[in-house]
Amino acid sequence: MIPDNEFIRMEGVPITKEEIRAVSIGKLRLSKDDVVVDIGCGSGGMSVEIARRCKFTYAIDVNDKAIETTTKNLKKFGVENCKVIKGNAKEILNDIDFNKAFIGGTKDIEGIIKILNKKEINHIVANTIVLENTVKIISLLEKYNYNVEVVNVSISYGKKISVGHMMMAKNPITIITGKKG
Amino acid sequence: MIPDNEFIRMEGVPITKEEIRAVSIGKLRLSKDDVVVDIGCGSGGMSVEIARRCKFTYAIDVNDKAIETTTKNLKKFGVENCKVIKGNAKEILNDIDFNKAFIGGTKDIEGIIKILNKKEINHIVANTIVLENTVKIISLLEKYNYNVEVVNVSISYGKKISVGHMMMAKNPITIITGKKG
Repeated sequence: MIPDNEFIRMEGVPITKEEIRAVSIGKLRLSKDDVVVDIGCGSGGMSVEIARRCKFTYAIDVNDKAIETTTKNLKKFGVENCKVIKGNAKEILNDIDFNKAFIGGTKDIEGIIKILNKKEINHIVANTIVLENTVKIISLLEKYNYNVEVVNVSISYGKKISVGHMMMAKNPITIITGKKG
Repeated sequence: MIPDNEFIRMEGVPITKEEIRAVSIGKLRLSKDDVVVDIGCGSGGMSVEIARRCKFTYAIDVNDKAIETTTKNLKKFGVENCKVIKGNAKEILNDIDFNKAFIGGTKDIEGIIKILNKKEINHIVANTIVLENTVKIISLLEKYNYNVEVVNVSISYGKKISVGHMMMAKNPITIITGKKG
């Protein structure tokens, strides 16, 4: 994994923390033949890590600053097998071919999972920070007959203070994996 | 990552859970040139994952059943660049060459870190489940002038019950990384 602080950042553009990237990458069970879409790519943290481990990656985001940040990070880390696409994922997904999907963020999860199911994408990994989204994604994946795995990850970092290390908590993230076939 | 249930297991031989393996592998920042020692290899979960990502791995354990389980798992996953050595890590470390160390378990952490430092191993990752060991390892790494990163990881798995998913907690694991140079 690439440490968080090596990525180029822009204000307001989120990044998936290193440890969550590590677990999420593990859940994608990537192989050199995979073509993966990263929906809501943010700073491109996951796009870079995914692209390094598979054949090709599409990084999608609706936000201009996210597109700019992801583009810069792909360049910084020498990633050439990733196409960055600005726009509404629901529309873009219909025009591209891939076999796995990572969902970092979207405002229309119903629409996205409906399309992924229709396109017979049998391996989906999603990260959620909002409880309601976690429940919604589990429910949608079950509706479309995916086998669902739910893993909640709480990370805390030791911060050096005068008397020793104080553990500083990050927000718990839920990593949902839907698979079928 | 390989799912936990794909590893061959023996009673009483521990395995590093998938998510902890994912984060620990990330912290090792493996490259194709690395030669890594896995101290206290247990079921070989980390040995298999490390060996797949580096040049060569040594898997050490003092326990007969651990050696047997690791050997079986390396064979199961077709790993050929890993040598399994039964015995006391402190003695074995003097006879092998490597540039990174993963410590999954040991009864003589003082002795081990002293040797790793003497051998100029500048990248060490350790997993701890016992608080006292966490503090001891941090203190030893600082004594030998390693830069120390402490990350605590708490995982819970969603268990499907009649009304939905109930989160079942695993024991928190601390992943300590010591680096210098």
